[in-house]
Amino acid sequence: MSSPAEAGATAPTQPRDAALPGDVILTGDRPTGPLHLGHYAGSLSTRVALQGRCVQTLLIADLQALTDASNRAAAGGPAYVATQVEAVALDYLAAGIDPALTTIAVQSRLPALSELTVLYLNLVTVARLERNPTVKAEIELRGFARDIPAGFLCYPVSQAADITGFRATLVPVGDDQLPMIEQTNEIVRRVNRLAGEPIVPECRALLSATPRLPGVDGRKASKSLGNAVPMNATADEIRQLVRAMYTDPGHLRASDPGCVEGNVVFAYLDAFDPDAAAVAELKLRYRHGGLGDAELKRRLVDLLEQVVAPMRERRAALAGDRSFLRDVLRDGTERADEVTRGVLRAVRQAFSLSV
Amino acid sequence: MSSPAEAGATAPTQPRDAALPGDVILTGDRPTGPLHLGHYAGSLSTRVALQGRCVQTLLIADLQALTDASNRAAAGGPAYVATQVEAVALDYLAAGIDPALTTIAVQSRLPALSELTVLYLNLVTVARLERNPTVKAEIELRGFARDIPAGFLCYPVSQAADITGFRATLVPVGDDQLPMIEQTNEIVRRVNRLAGEPIVPECRALLSATPRLPGVDGRKASKSLGNAVPMNATADEIRQLVRAMYTDPGHLRASDPGCVEGNVVFAYLDAFDPDAAAVAELKLRYRHGGLGDAELKRRLVDLLEQVVAPMRERRAALAGDRSFLRDVLRDGTERADEVTRGVLRAVRQAFSLSV
Repeated sequence: MSSPAEAGATAPTQPRDAALPGDVILTGDRPTGPLHLGHYAGSLSTRVALQGRCVQTLLIADLQALTDASNRAAAGGPAYVATQVEAVALDYLAAGIDPALTTIAVQSRLPALSELTVLYLNLVTVARLERNPTVKAEIELRGFARDIPAGFLCYPVSQAADITGFRATLVPVGDDQLPMIEQTNEIVRRVNRLAGEPIVPECRALLSATPRLPGVDGRKASKSLGNAVPMNATADEIRQLVRAMYTDPGHLRASDPGCVEGNVVFAYLDAFDPDAAAVAELKLRYRHGGLGDAELKRRLVDLLEQVVAPMRERRAALAGDRSFLRDVLRDGTERADEVTRGVLRAVRQAFSLSV
Repeated sequence: MSSPAEAGATAPTQPRDAALPGDVILTGDRPTGPLHLGHYAGSLSTRVALQGRCVQTLLIADLQALTDASNRAAAGGPAYVATQVEAVALDYLAAGIDPALTTIAVQSRLPALSELTVLYLNLVTVARLERNPTVKAEIELRGFARDIPAGFLCYPVSQAADITGFRATLVPVGDDQLPMIEQTNEIVRRVNRLAGEPIVPECRALLSATPRLPGVDGRKASKSLGNAVPMNATADEIRQLVRAMYTDPGHLRASDPGCVEGNVVFAYLDAFDPDAAAVAELKLRYRHGGLGDAELKRRLVDLLEQVVAPMRERRAALAGDRSFLRDVLRDGTERADEVTRGVLRAVRQAFSLSV
């Protein structure tokens, strides 16, 4: 599960090749803020492409968001998370996720996942969790130091509950999340050993092949920095954000040779322009001198507008009917509830608990 | 929650005084083996006396038993726990627990407790759990060293879920369990702060005032040592176990002065003889010389037989109808499910989760 803040950019065609017919995909997002084009390029576009080809569930991980939010200074943390659940679902539908093909479910409304988490906590040691590089890195990132919330230390276990709860075989992750997959498979093997037969499948990572899409200033795209292009950006906002994009500070005149590496406009073109040959040609011209930032940015504005416009239309159509969104979440969560309860029954049996 | 192995001996009249009308009591046992007279003297007799005076739930903590059992070398751990759930319930009824006055519930069949546990994990730090003296001591006792199962580290949180899940105000514990009560109340205060109002009560410890009842050999009573007097002992077993009781190795003839301290027979008389004056008199005679072990042990055999005989009768009456026992567990667990779900709704609201 990637947090919106961490989703990386991917050439949309790349990772789909790893999905096999019959794969069960679990992915999703922590509802900690609106999704942006980095999420779209990095994962949402892939999910749209995969739906109908694989069984796919998008889990809005509000419980996982609490591992972070409830420890914030303000008690507003959990309240904010709650407001973002529907916002994320709306982003999904706007991006083209079809609830008839993809199950969208809310984690906190699936009690079987909490029950699986509590059972799995017996199958992993504290030392093992502390060695998890993703947990280590995020502890540092979030500044928890010695005062890690127990929920945060245990979140790989919760993630294993999510993945196995849907019998997922394929989990789209960034390469920084690979240790989570390994941790899940360790738990899978221990559960299956306890059961005496394979009751939950091991899973594979569906890795993004392309680098993370940067913020307009070249730094990591982040809600708090305000440097991401929101998926619900207006045409004006797109123009303003592209205008502000970091290019090459040494590229003052169109005729000057410019640098492509670290140039945010090219990062976005790489992610979104379907005409790779044309982008390669532009990079040549830019490097050589003779291509101005203004012309380049006009191309990107048009391109992003083409990406965002249909999302904007779908969003507008949905805005009139909030009950549709709620129905999607309710129906998806009900389907997910049934699936996860089935897995819980099997796992309880493995633990010799009555079913 | 005391494990059978850890229940201490208590003069049955002592701790009842701390219970106030309106108190809600939560207690119970890990189903890790048959209960013995140490449990009866230390807690079961008190529970029998309190029923009808307070709202009382006995939780058979099979999930908590797994924090230990599932990490044992043999996968037989959880299977053994499962067989002990009904055995513990039968011990309760044999001891005189009346299911019309006391709710008997099975922890693993109460999903709200797992959901509360997962939520509470966000309210406590790993450092805080590691500082918990009870956890520290048990880690040492169980020889976990660095490889503590995560479920074990988190079990004070699970215990807080149990206690608050029943809105318990009074929790019978040994003094080694006092840090658990403090940990629970810390979580209670954090939940109530999050809710903006008191939705779960703080709890008090109901402490045993008398020392732990030893095993017949003077060591700690323990299933694995086979040195406890089981609650389902036959008259013959009682005679054999009392005969084997450690007294004073220097007290060879009846006329020799004998030592009362560390004398297991006196420990059992202190726990079970309703005639305290007579026991004091016997101690005087024993110290002075003139009271033989044989006479003393005959008195104890008669006394224990009086304690165990009615349990044996109730047990025999129940043995013919296993379905009654199952109905008791089903009805109690259903009642408990309703109560704990009500608390979960309030706590979810505090976390801004939909209810």
